[in-house]
This record gives sequence, C-alpha cells and structure tokens, in this order.
Amino acid sequence: MTAFDEGLLSPVTAGHDDVVSDAAVADALVHAEQALVTAYFEIGILSKADHAEIMLAFAGGARGDAVANVETLSMIDLTALAAAAVAGGNPVIPLVAELKARVPEPLRSWVHRGATSQDIVDTALMIVALSAVRRVRDSLAGVLAGLAILATQHGSDLVVARTLTQHALPMTLRTRIEAWRRGVDRAVTRLATLEFPAQLAGAVGTSASFATITGSADRARALVQGFSGQAGLDGPDGSWQVTRWPITELGDALVQTIDALGKLATDVTTLTRTEIGELSEGTGGASSAMPQKQNPVESTLIRSAALRAPQLGATLHLAAALAVDERPDGAWHAEWPTLRELLRLALGASAHAASLTANLRVHPAAAIRNLAITGGLIVSERLAITLVPLIGHERFDALIAAAAGGAELDALVRELPEVTDLVVDALLDPAGYTGVESGVGER
Amino acid sequence: MTAFDEGLLSPVTAGHDDVVSDAAVADALVHAEQALVTAYFEIGILSKADHAEIMLAFAGGARGDAVANVETLSMIDLTALAAAAVAGGNPVIPLVAELKARVPEPLRSWVHRGATSQDIVDTALMIVALSAVRRVRDSLAGVLAGLAILATQHGSDLVVARTLTQHALPMTLRTRIEAWRRGVDRAVTRLATLEFPAQLAGAVGTSASFATITGSADRARALVQGFSGQAGLDGPDGSWQVTRWPITELGDALVQTIDALGKLATDVTTLTRTEIGELSEGTGGASSAMPQKQNPVESTLIRSAALRAPQLGATLHLAAALAVDERPDGAWHAEWPTLRELLRLALGASAHAASLTANLRVHPAAAIRNLAITGGLIVSERLAITLVPLIGHERFDALIAAAAGGAELDALVRELPEVTDLVVDALLDPAGYTGVESGVGER
Amino acid sequence: MTAFDEGLLSPVTAGHDDVVSDAAVADALVHAEQALVTAYFEIGILSKADHAEIMLAFAGGARGDAVANVETLSMIDLTALAAAAVAGGNPVIPLVAELKARVPEPLRSWVHRGATSQDIVDTALMIVALSAVRRVRDSLAGVLAGLAILATQHGSDLVVARTLTQHALPMTLRTRIEAWRRGVDRAVTRLATLEFPAQLAGAVGTSASFATITGSADRARALVQGFSGQAGLDGPDGSWQVTRWPITELGDALVQTIDALGKLATDVTTLTRTEIGELSEGTGGASSAMPQKQNPVESTLIRSAALRAPQLGATLHLAAALAVDERPDGAWHAEWPTLRELLRLALGASAHAASLTANLRVHPAAAIRNLAITGGLIVSERLAITLVPLIGHERFDALIAAAAGGAELDALVRELPEVTDLVVDALLDPAGYTGVESGVGER
Amino acid sequence: MTAFDEGLLSPVTAGHDDVVSDAAVADALVHAEQALVTAYFEIGILSKADHAEIMLAFAGGARGDAVANVETLSMIDLTALAAAAVAGGNPVIPLVAELKARVPEPLRSWVHRGATSQDIVDTALMIVALSAVRRVRDSLAGVLAGLAILATQHGSDLVVARTLTQHALPMTLRTRIEAWRRGVDRAVTRLATLEFPAQLAGAVGTSASFATITGSADRARALVQGFSGQAGLDGPDGSWQVTRWPITELGDALVQTIDALGKLATDVTTLTRTEIGELSEGTGGASSAMPQKQNPVESTLIRSAALRAPQLGATLHLAAALAVDERPDGAWHAEWPTLRELLRLALGASAHAASLTANLRVHPAAAIRNLAITGGLIVSERLAITLVPLIGHERFDALIAAAAGGAELDALVRELPEVTDLVVDALLDPAGYTGVESGVGER
Repeated sequence: MTAFDEGLLSPVTAGHDDVVSDAAVADALVHAEQALVTAYFEIGILSKADHAEIMLAFAGGARGDAVANVETLSMIDLTALAAAAVAGGNPVIPLVAELKARVPEPLRSWVHRGATSQDIVDTALMIVALSAVRRVRDSLAGVLAGLAILATQHGSDLVVARTLTQHALPMTLRTRIEAWRRGVDRAVTRLATLEFPAQLAGAVGTSASFATITGSADRARALVQGFSGQAGLDGPDGSWQVTRWPITELGDALVQTIDALGKLATDVTTLTRTEIGELSEGTGGASSAMPQKQNPVESTLIRSAALRAPQLGATLHLAAALAVDERPDGAWHAEWPTLRELLRLALGASAHAASLTANLRVHPAAAIRNLAITGGLIVSERLAITLVPLIGHERFDALIAAAAGGAELDALVRELPEVTDLVVDALLDPAGYTGVESGVGER
Repeated sequence: MTAFDEGLLSPVTAGHDDVVSDAAVADALVHAEQALVTAYFEIGILSKADHAEIMLAFAGGARGDAVANVETLSMIDLTALAAAAVAGGNPVIPLVAELKARVPEPLRSWVHRGATSQDIVDTALMIVALSAVRRVRDSLAGVLAGLAILATQHGSDLVVARTLTQHALPMTLRTRIEAWRRGVDRAVTRLATLEFPAQLAGAVGTSASFATITGSADRARALVQGFSGQAGLDGPDGSWQVTRWPITELGDALVQTIDALGKLATDVTTLTRTEIGELSEGTGGASSAMPQKQNPVESTLIRSAALRAPQLGATLHLAAALAVDERPDGAWHAEWPTLRELLRLALGASAHAASLTANLRVHPAAAIRNLAITGGLIVSERLAITLVPLIGHERFDALIAAAAGGAELDALVRELPEVTDLVVDALLDPAGYTGVESGVGER
Repeated sequence: MTAFDEGLLSPVTAGHDDVVSDAAVADALVHAEQALVTAYFEIGILSKADHAEIMLAFAGGARGDAVANVETLSMIDLTALAAAAVAGGNPVIPLVAELKARVPEPLRSWVHRGATSQDIVDTALMIVALSAVRRVRDSLAGVLAGLAILATQHGSDLVVARTLTQHALPMTLRTRIEAWRRGVDRAVTRLATLEFPAQLAGAVGTSASFATITGSADRARALVQGFSGQAGLDGPDGSWQVTRWPITELGDALVQTIDALGKLATDVTTLTRTEIGELSEGTGGASSAMPQKQNPVESTLIRSAALRAPQLGATLHLAAALAVDERPDGAWHAEWPTLRELLRLALGASAHAASLTANLRVHPAAAIRNLAITGGLIVSERLAITLVPLIGHERFDALIAAAAGGAELDALVRELPEVTDLVVDALLDPAGYTGVESGVGER
Repeated sequence: MTAFDEGLLSPVTAGHDDVVSDAAVADALVHAEQALVTAYFEIGILSKADHAEIMLAFAGGARGDAVANVETLSMIDLTALAAAAVAGGNPVIPLVAELKARVPEPLRSWVHRGATSQDIVDTALMIVALSAVRRVRDSLAGVLAGLAILATQHGSDLVVARTLTQHALPMTLRTRIEAWRRGVDRAVTRLATLEFPAQLAGAVGTSASFATITGSADRARALVQGFSGQAGLDGPDGSWQVTRWPITELGDALVQTIDALGKLATDVTTLTRTEIGELSEGTGGASSAMPQKQNPVESTLIRSAALRAPQLGATLHLAAALAVDERPDGAWHAEWPTLRELLRLALGASAHAASLTANLRVHPAAAIRNLAITGGLIVSERLAITLVPLIGHERFDALIAAAAGGAELDALVRELPEVTDLVVDALLDPAGYTGVESGVGER
C-alpha cells in the first residue's frame, strides 16, 4: 500500500508541509491523549506512578518517563490507522484502542477517560494548526524582510502605475512594494491574534463525564485548563464542538494570508511578462527548450494556491453554519481535510513568497523604457491640473489629442506661450509626479 | 423600464435591505463626492462661499446650504445612471458628469477634483457597509436579548443532546442556547472591530493629484483625513485600491455572522421536525392546505442565506488575490455586487434571527418525551463510569446489551447487588448528568 | 419604496438582463398559473366558458379571452408581492391570493388547484431560464460570427505564443482564435442540450392531489403534459422537487459559458496591455484625464462575471446535495436568487462578448514588434530540433547561451559550417514554425 | 520523509482512492511518455528495435519488451520526484530526466520528443480520471442495484412525506427511492457521456514541433491519434491547453454525482434520527460508551464529501476562465490537486453509497407510527379536496381547526351528515393518497 499524496500534484507545498502531514496529525492526536492523562495527574486524580507508567507505555515501554513522540509514532501504522478510521468515521477510535493495548489493563481506563473523539481531533488539529501558523508567520517575516530590502534598494525606482492594464501614471516602486507590504502585514496581524483553543468537553459538550469522574465541576474545569496547557493551546471559553468560529477565523486568516501573497505573485507574473520585463524571479524557471523563457515559477505556484484557498475557506464556513445538534452529520468531517489543505497552502505559499521576495530581481532600465512608451502622456493628469487653468479645457484637449495622435508632447507643450521651458521640464518629468509616498516600515 | 430586483426571489432580505439598495449606494456615492468638496473647503483651498454654492447645487439649488441627500437623489434616475455606467464600467463617471452639470461652470473643476472613480466607489461602499453593519449589530443585540430570555425561561429544561443525529446524553437547554450565544457573540465582536476606511488616493493610489492640487504632501494627507471624517469613516493607513483586506475582513465577518445564525437556524429547523417537536417558530409558516404543518419559515430563510454566504465571501477573497496592477481588470468590479449581496444577507438573516429568537416557542414536554425514547440508555455513559468499577466490563456490557435489546434498564440495574436503590434513582435521572453549565451572559 | 437593484453595481449586465428581472419572474409565475388552468381545460375537467372567464379575470377582466401578461402584471405591485412573500417564504402564496381575488368566487378553486408553491416557482424559473438561455445562445452566435470574421481578416497574422507569461513560440492568431472558438462552441452545445422541465407534482411530488382532482393517474399525467406544453417547457420525467439536476446542469452550462468568455476576455485584457498592444477594444474605455489609456472595459466586465460565476454554481450544487425530505428547509430557497444571478451574468457576459469580438481591433504591427523582442529566440525550439542533430547538444547550448546573452542569433547560426544561408533564413523565420492550424469552422 | 496524506483525515475515501493516488498519477505520467514513444513507432518514424529498446529501458532494462509499469514505478521515488518537481513547477521535468537517464544516449532524444510538460500532465490526469470514473460508475451501478432491491422489498411501504421539516402527506417509500434513483441515474448518464481527450500539441498547442519532427502536418495528426489510442483516451478535437472544458465538464459530472449521493445520504441521516427511526444503516456506527446510538456513519461520510465537492468544482471553473495565454500562470497548476480530490471524493462517496444502499435497513413500523403522529391530518389536503365541495370552506376550516386543536379527526368527519362511513374510512386512509407512482427502473 503506497501513500495517497506525497506532493506530486502540489509543487507549491512540496517540501514545506511536513508540519501538517498525516504523521504530524497522528502525532498531535497522541499528544492530545497524553495531555489528557497528564491533566488527570495534575489535578490529583491519577497518581504519579500510574501517570508515569501510562506515559511509558504510550512511548513503547522501553525507557523512563521521558516520553518521545517519535517512538510512539514509530509504532503507529498510518495507513492501517486510516483504514481503521473508516468504520467509525474518525481516527481516534482505533487510535485509542491501540494506545489502550499498550497500557497495562488496570490503567487502561485512564486512556481517553471521559473524552469523546471530537475532543481529541479538534485539539489535535489546533496543535497542528498552531505549529503551522507559527511557521507561516516565520515565512511572512521573511517576506517582509525581503520587501524591506527591495524598498531600500529599489524603492525610489520610477515605474509605471497601471490601471485596467493601461499605463496610468508614474510612481515609485516603493508605492507598489508598500501595497504588498500592507497586505502581508495585515495578514500577520490576523494570524497573531488568532485563538487556538483546546477542546475538552466530552460527548456532547457538557463535560458531564469529567464532572462525574473528577467529582466536581470545578475540578472538571481545572482538568480542561490543565489539558489545554499540556496541549500548548489556549483554554477554551466553552465547548466549541458546534460553535466553530475557531475553525473559520483560522481559515479566514489563512485565506487572507494567501490573498496577500497572491496579489504580490500576480504583480510579479505580470511584471515579468516578456514585453514588460520590470521584474524577474531570481531562481529557477529556465526552459532548456526555450532559453528565452524565464518562467516566474514561484509566483505561478503561489497563484495556484491563491486560486484554490478561497473556496476551501468557504467550505469551512458552510461546515460551521451546518453544525447541527451537538455534533453534526457530516459538517465536522468536512472540516478536517479542508482546514489541513488550507494550512498546507499557507505554508507553501508563504515559503515560496519568502524565497520570491528574497531573490526578486528588479530591472529599472525596463521600467524607464516602459515609462516612455506613451510619449510623455503618462503625466497627462498632471498636465491637466497645471495647464487647464492656464489655457482652458478646449486648448488642452486639443493638445493632448494631438499628442495621442503622434505629435511630440514635449514640443506641443513648449510651444504654449503660457509656460516657460523650466516649467515644462518639471511638468513632463515622471519623477515629479509620484505622489505621497509612505515608506516600508515607516508606519 | 422596471427595476431588476425588488426582492421577489429574496424573502430572507425583503423589507430589511433598504440600507444597501441601489438608492442607498447612489446616496453614498453623492455623499462621497460631497465629502471631497467639503474636505477641500476644510483645508482652506476652497472658499466658504464656493463650497456653499457647490453644496447648494448638489442639492438641486433650491434652498440654502443644508444639503439634503433626499433631494439630491430625487434628481438622479438610477436606471439611467446604471445604464450610463456601462460604457466606462463604473457609475461614478456618469454621476460626476451629472453633478458637474448642476454646478456653475467656474466651480465645476472642484467636483471630483483629483479623485478617481475607485476613490468614490470604495468610499461609498464603505459608507453603505458601515450603515448596514450597524443595523446588523442592532439585530444581533436583539438575538442575544432573545437568547437571554430563553435561557432565563427555559435554560434549565432538560433536553436530549444528539450527535450524528442520535440521542447521546441529556443536557439542559441552556447548554444549547449557550452554544448559539457564543457564536453570535463572537460575530458581534468581529463586526465591532472591523475597520471602515475611506479611500482617497487618486488614479493609482499615490495621491499625486492631491499633492499637486493642494501644493503639499501634508495638505494632501489632511485632505484624506478630512474626507474620511466627512464620509463618517476611518482614516485609511494607506491606499487600499489593491490591498483589499478591508473588503475581505468585512466579508469574512459577515459570513461568520451568518454562519452563527445558520447554526441556530439549523438547530431550529431540526428541533421543529414533527417527530421531535421541541421547538416551534412563534410566527408565520401556517399552511391552509395542510394545517398540521408549522413551517419553520424564518429559520428556513436564514438557512438559505447561510448556504449562499460562504461562496460570496470566497469571491471577495479571489478578487483580493487577483488585484493586479494599481487597479485590476475585473477583480474590483466583481467585488461590488458580491459585497452588497453579503451585506444584504447579513441584514436579512440577522433581522429574522432576532424575530425568531424573540418568538421561539419551547415545548418542554416534547423534550421529556424524547428523553425517554431510549428507555434510560441516554445516561449509559454515566452508568459506565459508575458501574464498571463496581461490576467490571463484562457484566456491564451484558447489562447494557440486554437493555438495548428491550429489557427494562431500571430493573436490570436495581437487580445488581452492588448498588442501592438510592444510587439507582440518581444514576438513571437524566437531570443528574447535564454537566458543567455556563449560563448565558455569565462570562 | 425604491427598488433594491437597478443595475448600479452590475455594469456587466445592465441593459441585458431584463428577461430575468423580478418583473419577468412575476410574469412567469402568472404564466405558470395560467398554464395550470388551461391544462385543466385541455383535459376536459374545466369547461371552455369557465376557462375563458378565469383567463379574462387573470388579465384584469377588461377584454376578451386574449390574455396579455402585460396587463396582468400591470396590476401586480412587485414590491408589495415581495414583501408579502416573506411570511410564507415564497411569492406564490400571495400571488395566488391576488389571482384568486380577481376570479369570481365560484371559479376560484380552479386557481392553483392541486398545486404547491414549488410547482409554480420551479416552473416559472425554468420559463425564465429558457428565455434567458435562448438570448445567451443568440449572443454566443454573435461571438462565433465575430470570431469567424476575425479569423478571416487576421487569422494568418503572426503572433507570439506565451506560456507562464513568457514568449514561447510563434503562432498564427488563428490558433488563439480557435482556442476561444472551441470553448464558446462547446458552451453552445451544452446550452443546446439542456432540458427545461416543467414541475407539477403537488405538495410532495406524488401528484396525489391531481390524481384525486382529475379522477385518475392517467389524467393526472395528461395534466402534467398539458401544463408543460402550455408553459413552453419539456415534460418532466418525474418530480424534480428534490432531484435537482435540472438546476445544476443549467447552472453548470451557464458557468461553462462564462468560463469560455472569461478566457477570451482574459486574453484580451492581457493583449491590450500598453506594452503588448496587440489588441484593443473597439468601443468605450477612454479616460479624459489619462488620454493614453484605452481601457478594455468590456473584457474587464466579462472577467468580473467570470470571477463570480463559479461560486454561484457551487451554491446550486450544495442546494442540490442538501435537498432533504420532499422539500428542504433552506436549500430550495437558496437556489432562486443564485440561479437568477447566474442567468443574469451569462446574459451580460455574452452580450458584451458579442460586442467585444465584433469590434475588436487587431494590431499586427505590434505583434511583429513583440515577436522580435527575444532576438530570434522565439524559434529556439525549432533550432534545437534542426541543429542538435547537426552540431550536437554542447555546441547548440553554447550558441543559444551566447544569443541569450546578447549576441546576434542570426549571425551565430550563419557562422555554423553545417548550415546554409537558405536554411538559416527558413529556420529563423517565425512564420515557418506556426504548426498545424485548424481553421475556425473547419471541423 | 513520510508521506503527506495516507487518508487519516479522509475516512470517506480511505480504501477507495488508490486509482487516483500519487502512485497512480506517476504511473499515468510514465504511461503517457510510453504512449508517445510508441506513437512515433506506429507512424514509422522510430524503428521497431529502437522502440523496443526504449520500452525495455523504461521498464528497468532487465527483461524483454513487455513493459510492466509496476517495475517502472518501483524505480521511481515519488517523494523525490515531488521534491524535484518544485523548481520547474511540474513533475514531468524531473520524470523526463529520469526516464532519459535509463535510455541509451543515442535514443534519448526520443523520450518526450517534441512534447511539453502539459501534454504529459493533462494526458496522465485524463488516464487517471477515466480509470476513476469507471470505478465510480461501477459503484453507482451498485447503488442503483441496491435501490432496486429496496424498492422491491419496501417500495410499497407507507411513509410520511415531509416539506420544510413538517409532515405533509403520505406517500410510498417508492416515491422517495425513485427521487434518489433519478438523481443517481442522471449522474450515470453524465459520466457516461464525458469525453476523455488526450493532450498532445507541443509547447503552445500548435504541434509545430511534431510537424517538424515528423515532417508533415498529417503525420503530426496521426501521431496525436496514435498517442491517444496508446493512452486509452479519446482523440482531442484540438489542443485544450487553454480550452479547459474537458476538465470542467468532468468536474461538473463528478460534483453532480456527489450531489445525488449527498441527497440520498442527507435523507438517510435524517430518517435515522432517533425520533424518526424509519431507516438505519446496516453496518458500523456503534458506540460502546453510548449503546443506544446507531451512528449513520456512511451517510455522514458521504455528506462530508457533498459539502466539499461543489467548491472544488468552482475552482476548476475559475482555472478555466483564467487560462490566459497559451499556458497560464497558476490556473493550470490549481487544477491538478483539485481535480484529483474531486475524483477521490467521487470514488469514496460512491463506494460508501453502494454499501449504504446494499445494507440499508427499513423500519416500516416506525413509519406507520410516524404517520399517525398528526392524528390523521396527514391527509388533510385530501379531505379538503373532497369535503370543501360538500360542506364549504367555513365548516371545513372549523373542522380542521378543531382537529388541530386536539379533537378526534375521525369522529369529526364521521359526524358530518354529508359523508358516509364508507367514504370516511377511505378518506382517512393514508394508503389511499399516495399519488401517482413511477416505479424504479420502469422508465
């Protein structure tokens, strides 16, 4: 039996997605079960010796109480676990059976005690998500660093600003970089303010089992806090088994992250067009058959993620809205692979974006060449602001029409008795009409 | 020429969506143009008299400088404006022409001065969105109030908790209400923290025109602040012409809001099923042909919105990711009707949810009847926790199997020599296994 | 009370969407009710005189039995109907009340007799859809005609073929036009093979009411056939109240149509970029402030539709999958505005595409200029095929590297002792490497 | 390095998706490359001996010319291939390098000769898709067989028909089964009429390389036909590199398939609700902690697929609409994992649906019990049709109101002087108002 997906069809994520792989998820599932056992120990219900014995058994029983997930997992056959998950519809059922089998009979009841599958799956997905989001944030820090360097090196470069694909006005490259930066920066903020709550509320979200097992509501609450801490997650403000904003807010932030990178990548693929040539990727993308090509591979891959992510986010929202009863008949199951794929895309897109920005090559000469294509009309808005008050609308429109028809704009303006040569030079200089810059990082 | 959409196919929003209608949008477009003129006046570039004359002209010229949008709009033919918007691809072009025509020639250049269509459209959509979100928040406050009353009146009612459609455990209705409340409450928080920035940055986002017209970058910045204030919006931290998180964060919050209401509505339609009958809507839904029916109309309508909203949100994200150049070739245009429809759905869904919760009827007797369907097995989890340590797994499993096969659970438990009658009564009482409640509003 | 949507935010559809407006839908609802009355007459249950009287009453009672929907509708207040639709969740309930009120009491029971709201809504939406699809097909015929003319006039023009934004090989414009044509042609086929079934099966899809009213299953079936014919629709193969492929297949075909136009429009916006300039739209898009701009407005609008349509199609599929029971609690209601918006987008996108292709301007000189940008490397694939067998990989790679580095490719090749000048001319001529064309319409 | 996805989070597909795994895709990529070499042999450009040697080399070189993909693939390290695919953005580039390395130098140029990566990827995905669709169709045949048996065994069972969650009318189970069957049947038709074209058109879709290599356009066309045949696919009507209806039509048909299964599964989860109990799944779903539960696991899993599929289909449409140039900058890459996941979901959902329908248990007694819940009002529509003409609207409404209020409907009707007891018995019998059935398979 081979694995289903090793990344062959996912070049945007291959090499960047191990923290959300099935192995990572299985690791997190075991981690969640360990956290529960330890939480029982912490609130004083489970003895130190028993706790140590269970931890040892989880780890394979070979050594002391330093539990190493690596060993735990080395004993789990993921394919078999996945297959065994089908009958009951989730992987926790067979996993618990396997973990219990490792534990001496008298202590078995402490494994998964009082918990429901959703407690473990939701918690594990949050563990994995937190780990992935941290890595995404690292990559985004790399993107921001790359943009800052670009702004330092090329922020003052003159470039063409385009609207609806047409040359509109001149601007500095800093303005474009700043548009990218603000998008990425906002995504960072969203990711940084996410909550990653643990889930531990028993079969229907009431914690009835935990209250019974621990003997009081207060101890049940302490158990939840201990569990959350052991899992490295936030304490939940209540059961979110069917109150799914932790999932959708996470999904939205991931999509927003990918949007910001998608905008950047879309500008890069556009500006690397052979005719435009203002940017090129610094790595890869060569074609031996067609050496003139410098394929913008990283931005293409990022864009492939950006085209997919929003619809994955939509699925998470649908699942949230359809979370009927105290556990729904399909909506919850729809979340797992969808959320995981979103995490995966964010990991891949952000890693490539960091590389992309670090290696992006800027070609100022091409930008200057492009600025000249419209024969000076790139500053026509400025001409209008300045000249219309002097020569009126009619003469101005005629002048511009003549220029658009092929006449030399420079000469036409110089012929105007109302303006001096000095003013003309300034008027026609694109560098003088780049507006109000706000520098990268200067907020 | 008749209107395209008067709500015939949108019962979930009919009667609740006027603040986002075309008329409201047109009003906001004019509002944005007024705000720009006034901002010029505020920074001292436009004289008080000229400003007053323009405002008067905008208002139709009939009276003093108290500008009434109503009159302004009464002069705008929306269908004609929509038709005229096609050629240039946006409604601001013909609107500006119309507004200029109202203003005396010498002052015309102050209309839309230095601005681009996107400044006005983005700002207008934010004006409309802010107004709509305020109304949605009012409705959500109504939902929370309705839930609080429900919790007070019926929070202690015993109900069945269900997972994967099956009876699982008992709980109080408060637990379910609390799950709804936390979803709605979180949506309120998201809506409350949204930013509604104005947009004013000229043709390509550099404010070059404003810097030239006002004579300095500082005054251009002051213009933006004044404009934002006049528009009743937040000052932007930069141009967001192609950095679209203000749109996607708004969209995400709206979808999250509708998700929360969709969850509530889905529970209502489920619990009003004829066989379940634990809830019924307080209004409407009667069928004269089939009087036994009490259609859950409001929750059905809310659900119709919840099935549509996530995909609209996805479109906003796609548009954000594909916002190429300094204004994109289609992505921006795709946002307008999509965002507006999301606002509309949130308005309608939240209004119906407020009515739904205010009028929801709870039928405790049905809940009690349903609790008894499984002959006491609803507390089987509790029995296991208590009895297995006393009688062991094998005997417990046999006991439960006998009960599931039809034997009287109560009698089977009483026959156990290990337990007293007193304990049995408590063990089998669903009211004793409802877990750790967290009351509505008690956080 | 003003209308909600007059097209202000929908420039892609304004002026093209009247056949799917609320008025058109209301007209179709009345049409469906008329069809039912007439079908009763046709199977001999309703007398000729009674039928005539009802038809007359529907029409306002003023004249003979020539029913004019125009007059019928002139009596319907759409806004009021939409408002009245909320309580029961659909517009048929108040519409039937209004129609009954027009009919003399003894005949009132024949209005909507035995039918359910879904019979009328589904049938009306199919009436509207059929009308819209016919118009879309007309527009697509216009697109194909435009493409055929383009192929005739410019099919042999040499252009650059691009992959991943980079110049790859030369080709003729015919190849690109053909790619567009095949997409549009396939969409036409899909639209042409759609089924537009009427719906008439009573409250739960069993036709029990019709069997009882008409006295036999056979007459009930005849009633359905008569109704379908009167409605101008296909006879259904059974009730599709909760078997929704007629809706999703329609939706898929509309999305496929818009996809094909979106591809065309995306190529147009790309090729009209200022730096590329191989195409320009023939109409509109001028900017007075920036006269150098020739905004590709029609293709931008088409693209805005293409970015929205797929998610609308997804909503239809979700509604189909969630069509629980014999009529679902929200999924059906979610379809109405979604399907209507898809029809609207197809109408607008196809109308603009017909105009776009009819007026598209081709600039062969720009294409020739672009072909030369890579200094002959555009035919490097061909050089490899021909030269590598002659000079080996190593020498070939060195030659190409030299050319990519700035050396004259022509000279480098001519210096090769293995090749003659004659061969070189042919080798380097892009016109000689345009491949296997398949002409428009030549299949 | 472990695999990314072994199915742990995809219980709906685990065990059913091997034909679309990465291994299967890699197999198909090799298959496509083999098909190209063989097509060269078939048109007479490559000698029999050379062809045999290449085939042997592909297979590992150990034995005769019977190429076994198993051995070919045993030599491919999927993880390494996936990693190597990143730099160029697709897996064909490193695969071709690997395949060439196996072939003796003089013959290497025949590997991938004239082809572009997209030729191989598109063809391979179609090979995989065809294989998967065949398996889906087998499963759907199983579903139809299961439904036919259900109809035979339980088609005449009386059940409640529900609209908007409320009891509406009686019907036979056959009507519901028939609604399912028509949905599945239509999906089968859609799948059966799909086209699975090979792709072979070179770098930009012009087949220029093939025309040059083979020496003529006709031979290039023959090569495409031979290649298609070797790949087991349809001959394309032209290059579909950027004319993507083969992908979207496939996607739409898969989503339609999953919709049909989703409707069935949604009815099953609903009708297995503890309170309703008319159906239960025949396998799995037991909970040891809560033995009263019989979780509808298979239908829950099918529903999880149905909630995800539509948005995946939308992504395919977006990619089609954004297929700019002769190969796009991201849209194509977005298709691969999306299409593969849709195929996977269709495989899993259909396999579970076949099992579900084969094992579904029907509980007629529960249906009879449910029919009685409304005290006879389930036939109120019939009463109205029959009684209103006899007793008038007012008396009828009063009678029904009395019954809805709790009075015995049977007694109220018998008290009417206008009706005989005989008629009353028939009137109130739900079995007499089940409408016009159309049997499963009787079309």
